[in-house]
Amino acid sequence: MYKAKAYSAAGATAPLAGTTIARRDIAGHDVQIEILFCGICHSDLHQVRNEWKSVMPTVYPCVPGHEIVGRVTRVGSAVTGFKPGDLAAVGCMVDSDRTCPECQSGLEQFCPNGTLTYNSPDKHLGGVTYGGYSDSIVVDQRFVLQVPGNLNLAGTAPLLCAGITTYSPMRHWGVTKGKKVGIVGLGGLGHMGVKFAHALGAHVVVFTTSPGKKEDARRLGADEVVVSRHADEMQRHAGSFDFILDAVSADHDINAYIQLLRRDGNITLVGAPEKPLAVPVFGLIFKRRSLSGSPIGGIPETQEMLNFCGEHNITADVEVIPIQKVNEAYARLLKSDVKYRFSIDMASLKAE
Amino acid sequence: MYKAKAYSAAGATAPLAGTTIARRDIAGHDVQIEILFCGICHSDLHQVRNEWKSVMPTVYPCVPGHEIVGRVTRVGSAVTGFKPGDLAAVGCMVDSDRTCPECQSGLEQFCPNGTLTYNSPDKHLGGVTYGGYSDSIVVDQRFVLQVPGNLNLAGTAPLLCAGITTYSPMRHWGVTKGKKVGIVGLGGLGHMGVKFAHALGAHVVVFTTSPGKKEDARRLGADEVVVSRHADEMQRHAGSFDFILDAVSADHDINAYIQLLRRDGNITLVGAPEKPLAVPVFGLIFKRRSLSGSPIGGIPETQEMLNFCGEHNITADVEVIPIQKVNEAYARLLKSDVKYRFSIDMASLKAE
Repeated sequence: MYKAKAYSAAGATAPLAGTTIARRDIAGHDVQIEILFCGICHSDLHQVRNEWKSVMPTVYPCVPGHEIVGRVTRVGSAVTGFKPGDLAAVGCMVDSDRTCPECQSGLEQFCPNGTLTYNSPDKHLGGVTYGGYSDSIVVDQRFVLQVPGNLNLAGTAPLLCAGITTYSPMRHWGVTKGKKVGIVGLGGLGHMGVKFAHALGAHVVVFTTSPGKKEDARRLGADEVVVSRHADEMQRHAGSFDFILDAVSADHDINAYIQLLRRDGNITLVGAPEKPLAVPVFGLIFKRRSLSGSPIGGIPETQEMLNFCGEHNITADVEVIPIQKVNEAYARLLKSDVKYRFSIDMASLKAE
Repeated sequence: MYKAKAYSAAGATAPLAGTTIARRDIAGHDVQIEILFCGICHSDLHQVRNEWKSVMPTVYPCVPGHEIVGRVTRVGSAVTGFKPGDLAAVGCMVDSDRTCPECQSGLEQFCPNGTLTYNSPDKHLGGVTYGGYSDSIVVDQRFVLQVPGNLNLAGTAPLLCAGITTYSPMRHWGVTKGKKVGIVGLGGLGHMGVKFAHALGAHVVVFTTSPGKKEDARRLGADEVVVSRHADEMQRHAGSFDFILDAVSADHDINAYIQLLRRDGNITLVGAPEKPLAVPVFGLIFKRRSLSGSPIGGIPETQEMLNFCGEHNITADVEVIPIQKVNEAYARLLKSDVKYRFSIDMASLKAE
C-alpha cells in the first residue's frame, strides 16, 4: 500500500476536499498510473450527493472520477502492453469477473460482477474503490487503455465516459456514411455525439432548445441545427432519421423525436431522466421504430474509440480547471454552464 | 360494377346491419374472390365506432373486415398466380404505390400511399374501400395471397392480421431455436404469438393476469406460464429473455417486462394502448435493451407466414359465428370473451 493524494466527499452534503487515500502496491498484472487529467462527469455529482441511493448508495468518503488519463509510472511483472512512461487511460470500470459470457465477448460493461472505478467494493483493500480525483491509481492491465500520442490530454480524459457512451450506440446501431443522424441536447455527451457522427460520415442534425448554440453546433460538425421548440422545423424532418442519440437527462417529449425516425429507425437514450418517459405506442408501431438505451462500451470498443479519436483527431471540448475549483465546477454543471466538459488538471493536486 | 352483399355500420353508434355495396368489375390484374370466412379484428370495432378519429376518421357506411379467406371466382386477363376455384386470402392492404422504396423492398405495410382494405380512398369507385364482411371482393393480384390447402379455412382467416402481426416481429427480431421468448397477453394476437414462437423452436413463456389460462397456454405451445401479478414468479425470469411480444392493448406496467430482457433483448408492442406507456430509462440503458412496435407485415412476408402455417399446420383458434351475430360478437370482444378470435362464416350472409 502507498498513499495517494485525492479529493473526496465526506457525505452527501459535504464539499469535496483534499485528503490522502491508500492505493494498493502493484501486483503482477497491475499498472500504476500518475493521473494527469480527470474529466468531471455528471455521474460524479450524482454519486457524491448520493442521488442514486436506491440503486447505488454512496459509501463515504467518496473519491469520484472515471475519465482518467495519465502516464504509466510502474508495471507489474506480468504486464505486457504498458511500460513506464507510456500514456494510459482508465474509464468507468477497473475490473470484472472475466469469465461470464459478457466478459468473454469483450462486453465487460454488462458483466454482472463488474467493479466500477469508484464506489464499488474493492477486493484488494476492502472498502470501496476510489476514482480519478487523485494523483495516482493502480489498475489491472486488462482495464487500462492505450492513448494515441497525438491527442490533447485534457480533452482526452472525457473520452473515457462521455466519448465511449456516445460512440458505442452509434457503432451498435450502424451509423455510417449516408445515414441521417440526430443528436438531442448539446452538452458533455451531445457534443461528443456530434463529433463522432460527423467523423463516421453521417449527415448530422443537432436538436437544441437554445438558438444560441447553433453556431457552435456547426463548428462541432453539425450539418443542420433545429431549434426543437419550433414545431415547423421539427415537422420538416418527420420520418427521416436513421438514428437519433438522445443525450438529455431532463424530462422531455420523447415522442417528438420518435416521430422523426424513418422506418426501422432507432432512438437511443444515453441521458437518464429521473422520471419515466411517456411513450405513445402508435409512433413505434407505424414505422417499426425502436427506442433503446445504452451505457458505456466494453474495453475492446473503448480502445477502438480511442484509436478512432487518434485517427480523426477527436477530443472533447474542455474547460481545464485546478482541482481546488471542483466544487465550483459542480455548481456550474448543474446550470449546464460549461462548454462542454470540465477536465481537472491534476498538477494542481500535486502542488497542494 | 356489380352488387355484393355486406354488413355495414351507418355511424359510430349504429349496429352493423345487412346492406348491398358496389364492387368493381375485374380488370386485367384483378382477382374476384367469393369470401368464405372473415375474422373479426379489434381494429374493426375501433374503426366502426370511429375511435381512431384523430388519425383515421371513419367514413360511413363502413364495411370492416381485413382477415379474408375465400375462393377465386374470376380472374383478369393478366392474372398469372390464381385461377377460378383456387383458395385465396386478403389481409389489411389491397393496394400501394408499388414504386416507393418500401414497396420495392416488399414492405408495402410502410408505403406512404397504401390502400387499406377498408376505410381507405377507393381509387376505382370513389368513396372508400369496403372490407371483408361481404360475400365478394375484387383485389389486385399483387395483394392476394395463396392459401395452403391443408388449413382449416375458418381458422386461416385471422392469420391475415393477427397472424402476420405476431409472425413479422418475431422474424424481424430473430426468434429461432434456442431463444427465450415471452408472450404478454393471451388474446387474439397473443395466442398466435405462442403458436409461432413454439413452431420457430423458441422456449416460450406466457405472461397472463389470469391463472385460469395456464392450461390453455400450455396447450397452445407455452413451455412455462407466469402469472404476471406474482412478483416472485416475475423476478425468477429477470434479465433472461431474448425477445418479448407484448400484445396487451390496455395500459400496463411495461417496465416489469423490460426488466425481464437480457442484454440486447427487445420487447415489441403489437397492441396499442391509448395512453402513452411510462418507460423508465435506466431499465433500457443498463442492458442496452430496446422497446419497439410493429404493425403487420409486407405481402411477401405474409405469404411466407401462410406457407409456414401450412407446413406447421397452424391456424387461429376461432369461434365461428354467423354474420347475424356480429354485433353480439363485438360486445363480447370488449369483454375479451372469445377463445381466441371470431371468424364469420360468410355462408350465413348468402342465406340472408
